[in-house]
Amino acid sequence: MKKKIITISRECGSSGHIIGQKLAKEFGIPIYDKEIISMVAKEKGYTEEIIENKGEHMTGSLLFNLVNNLSHANSILSGNNISLQDEIYFSQVKVIRELADKEACVIVGRCADYILKERPDCINVFIHANLDFRIKHLTQQNNITEEEARKHIISKDKARAYHYQYYTDKKWGNSKNYHLCLDSGVLGIEKCVSIIESIYLG
Amino acid sequence: MKKKIITISRECGSSGHIIGQKLAKEFGIPIYDKEIISMVAKEKGYTEEIIENKGEHMTGSLLFNLVNNLSHANSILSGNNISLQDEIYFSQVKVIRELADKEACVIVGRCADYILKERPDCINVFIHANLDFRIKHLTQQNNITEEEARKHIISKDKARAYHYQYYTDKKWGNSKNYHLCLDSGVLGIEKCVSIIESIYLG
Repeated sequence: MKKKIITISRECGSSGHIIGQKLAKEFGIPIYDKEIISMVAKEKGYTEEIIENKGEHMTGSLLFNLVNNLSHANSILSGNNISLQDEIYFSQVKVIRELADKEACVIVGRCADYILKERPDCINVFIHANLDFRIKHLTQQNNITEEEARKHIISKDKARAYHYQYYTDKKWGNSKNYHLCLDSGVLGIEKCVSIIESIYLG
Repeated sequence: MKKKIITISRECGSSGHIIGQKLAKEFGIPIYDKEIISMVAKEKGYTEEIIENKGEHMTGSLLFNLVNNLSHANSILSGNNISLQDEIYFSQVKVIRELADKEACVIVGRCADYILKERPDCINVFIHANLDFRIKHLTQQNNITEEEARKHIISKDKARAYHYQYYTDKKWGNSKNYHLCLDSGVLGIEKCVSIIESIYLG
């Protein structure tokens, strides 16, 4: 069947966002990535910085979660006894479902593949590449050293993997969670785009 | 670059072999799956049944390995003090490398993606599908009940996953091990074939 939604999960530096942008441009549909942060921030009344730090990451520290809970004592006292992390996640779930209901679009990250898993009009993609390719890509895109890029990638991917596993009970990057997984380093960005295009068009 | 070798790893019942057959026919190249068993059997002097049981599977039982070793005391006494499983694996490695050197081909299973990982002319594919799709496929192809198909699939995949992890130190089905992972249940066999074709042709 013809697809409506493309979700893109991606390793840091694998060009997943660029692939999403190209697809969105090709089909004349919106792409939602950091835009989801603004939507959740607006809905929940938190700053975008808090949402970004907690919206796709896990600290893995109970103490950190506890501190955050205490700093939002109002929420707890009002009976909504869930962590800030959970609160943001459930708000993201709501926003992502509303976006998917509303229009054809590309959604990057934020467990969208899992959140929309019941939709037959959704194609779930995972983009990855080897570490050297990603370090090169990141140093070219940003004014950072190879060592800084390596540290950033490892830290970002670890956080995403923890976050994904925590909310979905599945392994981030396991092929079974996606309809299509592509190595952008070997296949190239344009080939990845054309493969996803051919599936999107049915 | 134009590719020469296609390796296909596949979940049981996901039509990975059929996809491989269609690609081989399309490109007029041979496909090696159980044929590798005959080659290894011929080289090592074991029966095809032994090679098949040990060539892509792990029993996970030290006792089983020990019994097999004892029954091949000659091999041990001659100084080749490795398990039958290892002996078969290393023979498969040799056969698979020779096949890849010799000609363009499709190779199904047997850790071929890992064995040929240094070759830039090799495209590594993993085919998977959800369990219900695979049970349906297996009951249609064979005269077995759904319950028999379910048991067969779970047992076969478990053995393949252990075997792959033992020899590669990597998780079977993790997208990072392959250039391309496809859900044949959602995408359909023909779409999987056409995507792999488009990559093979460069």
